[in-house]
Amino acid sequence: MMDNGTGTESTGGAIDYDILSPRCCVRPPMPWFGMDIGGTLTKLIYFEPKDRTAQEAEEEKETIKVIHSYLIGNVAYGKTGIRDVHLEMCNQTIGGRTGSLHFIRFPTCEMSAFIDLAKVKNFSSLATGICATGGGAYKFEEEFKQRVNLSMYKFDELDCLIKGIHYIDRHNLSECYYWKNPGDPDTCEKVPFDFHDPYPYLVVNVGSGVSILAVRAYNDYKRVSGTSLGGGTFFGLCCLLTNCDTFEEAIALASKGDNTKVDKRVKDIYGGDYNRFHLPGDIVASSFGQMHLKDKREQSSREDLARATLTTITNNIGSIARMCAVTEKIERVVFVGNFLRVNTISMKLLAFAMEFWSDGAMKALFLEHEGYFGAMGCMMEYISSRSGDSFSYPHPDNTTNDHCDHRPGCMDPDHHKSDQRDQDHTHTNGLG
Amino acid sequence: MMDNGTGTESTGGAIDYDILSPRCCVRPPMPWFGMDIGGTLTKLIYFEPKDRTAQEAEEEKETIKVIHSYLIGNVAYGKTGIRDVHLEMCNQTIGGRTGSLHFIRFPTCEMSAFIDLAKVKNFSSLATGICATGGGAYKFEEEFKQRVNLSMYKFDELDCLIKGIHYIDRHNLSECYYWKNPGDPDTCEKVPFDFHDPYPYLVVNVGSGVSILAVRAYNDYKRVSGTSLGGGTFFGLCCLLTNCDTFEEAIALASKGDNTKVDKRVKDIYGGDYNRFHLPGDIVASSFGQMHLKDKREQSSREDLARATLTTITNNIGSIARMCAVTEKIERVVFVGNFLRVNTISMKLLAFAMEFWSDGAMKALFLEHEGYFGAMGCMMEYISSRSGDSFSYPHPDNTTNDHCDHRPGCMDPDHHKSDQRDQDHTHTNGLG
Repeated sequence: MMDNGTGTESTGGAIDYDILSPRCCVRPPMPWFGMDIGGTLTKLIYFEPKDRTAQEAEEEKETIKVIHSYLIGNVAYGKTGIRDVHLEMCNQTIGGRTGSLHFIRFPTCEMSAFIDLAKVKNFSSLATGICATGGGAYKFEEEFKQRVNLSMYKFDELDCLIKGIHYIDRHNLSECYYWKNPGDPDTCEKVPFDFHDPYPYLVVNVGSGVSILAVRAYNDYKRVSGTSLGGGTFFGLCCLLTNCDTFEEAIALASKGDNTKVDKRVKDIYGGDYNRFHLPGDIVASSFGQMHLKDKREQSSREDLARATLTTITNNIGSIARMCAVTEKIERVVFVGNFLRVNTISMKLLAFAMEFWSDGAMKALFLEHEGYFGAMGCMMEYISSRSGDSFSYPHPDNTTNDHCDHRPGCMDPDHHKSDQRDQDHTHTNGLG
Repeated sequence: MMDNGTGTESTGGAIDYDILSPRCCVRPPMPWFGMDIGGTLTKLIYFEPKDRTAQEAEEEKETIKVIHSYLIGNVAYGKTGIRDVHLEMCNQTIGGRTGSLHFIRFPTCEMSAFIDLAKVKNFSSLATGICATGGGAYKFEEEFKQRVNLSMYKFDELDCLIKGIHYIDRHNLSECYYWKNPGDPDTCEKVPFDFHDPYPYLVVNVGSGVSILAVRAYNDYKRVSGTSLGGGTFFGLCCLLTNCDTFEEAIALASKGDNTKVDKRVKDIYGGDYNRFHLPGDIVASSFGQMHLKDKREQSSREDLARATLTTITNNIGSIARMCAVTEKIERVVFVGNFLRVNTISMKLLAFAMEFWSDGAMKALFLEHEGYFGAMGCMMEYISSRSGDSFSYPHPDNTTNDHCDHRPGCMDPDHHKSDQRDQDHTHTNGLG
């Protein structure tokens, strides 16, 4: 019925997703970046043009060459910056240019070193500002201005997230997937999911905290809920309980642990199932519910504690997501955010829980570029707003693209969008 | 409009709550107990008859006198049993008898010592069984039978909870209250709330885990949600993080701590408020979100960690309760369970959060007998089922009391009620 989601085909009546990539008359100056400064991690996308003529290459400023070779010539930057080479997207046409998208991340607490780097590489000779989303776009605005004379072009993180999801999903054939048989280690497998006709769906963005959005069309979403118990909670608690140093170590510990030594299950209270309300004996009744007992604490390893922490946070997110899905009458739930990086345990737990508690009605979906959608959307906003030519995309319902109105204003670093369209959200805490 | 809730007045058309207390022709044998064996705490209610004639007193078995004087003569039992003297309810007429209700609790992990006590006091010479609710009624059934030859008369914990709430609320004038100005330490105060016309309301029972029930009439409730992040999670995590020994110590630590040294707030990410979605800078964006940083860990005290744990668990419960209230279209939310014992911090947090995020539409209510409602309901079930005369109560809608059908069967320890009426619940984990 639908095409394969690569965006190479145009189908009558359906959305032509190719033109989500802006066709610009006036190209914004290179280099093109999109940056998402989150509470824990900063995500950076760099567009490497590959369609330069020999003359263009020759005329390119020395500074651009330096920045380019630094970014592309390395996979690690300093002690903590990483380029996720496996996520690179080649042969992308964006803003009328063709090239590759590179995905880089570093801890937000290293922002000062990043600014130093921008100074050393003389970034301000190329641009008057830097394009960013996430809370850090506000928090670090002053520091960027004072130390490297760069203005912050700020875009809303949830607008960017949604745009980024649509761009990347349309342009990466195998972006979206689900876990088949998530409850059975022997037969569980990752299976591609055709996300070409996605609406409506829920986005559960698990960064330091969690934001949950209901998306009903490309330009129609609202933030419906959130929780402060997110990836930062898992990592922070794991550091306290196991003295681990990195997120990867926390996940590795969890993969070897057993939460049933830490949690109290239904069967620990009932001796079996709680039949009246169909609660199986194996499910957790009280997370960390055995840890008030000294002997149980002594019998729990670092691995068990890490696993219990991961299980607790994951199940809580799954439970809240499920409640939102029921309230919003949505069956497809897309989990994104860096909490899911190298974290198949949580993905399988979420997949299993969504299916099990909804009797198969709901589906947990995942995206390969996990935490980079905000940065991608940010780059798209930058390119289109600089080009003088807003995104335009046909919509089956001919809904007005009310975001276009804001775009030129976004180039003013002091202009903060306030979109009344989204005022009917549920107030809750939790941010990516 | 309504009477004062003491149950002494009968109002035309309204429910006569006095007859929630069963009028029995056949009295079940003394002593009368109700026991709720939870995942962490066992709650025991003992009815002390005060209307005995001199002859009755004389004829009373020695065993009853021994048990009576042991329970009433002490406020502490062994190292961990406590009688909550301040909760005692005098001059209660139940099952045709008048006397006092005594409220006793001990850790469920001490059940073996309790069974020893029953043996020493020769309880089995008085009764063939013991009346209990909660998961432990199932878990410890075999042990009671084998060690003291007592059968377990089991009642469903949520049925008992609802019955107990209604009994105690009707018979204690100042049972229900709320917190006025919960966000302002200077003017915050406890204010009585008239709960005489309570329906519909949500019950959030926070024990080791959490169960959430929507109650639309005396005999019409369903379990709508739950979470495994409950009182057991707070206490367990606190023991791990602060090496405290008791729940009271955990609460005392939390009262002196500052969670903002542990959590990441919106302002820590944004530098201020997140205006687009009206998230104030002071709210928590990521619980424990600073604890992945070594220097922040070193700057956090045991008190700060206890406070962060309490804030995290409390806010999560509040958030889930709020979502349920919205879904069920209910404005009154009654928080019960032993998590709230000596825990004004959580009560005020819940009160503030419920009002703030609902723009004043929702109200958090609390009950003085916090965790004893299941045990109370259990005693009522016992008395009415033994009397051969089921509870009967008029109902404005003339709704059939379908619970009566089950009652005689409940005296069979092997009979487990399965009530199809409640099958439309939302499956989630978490138990009191």
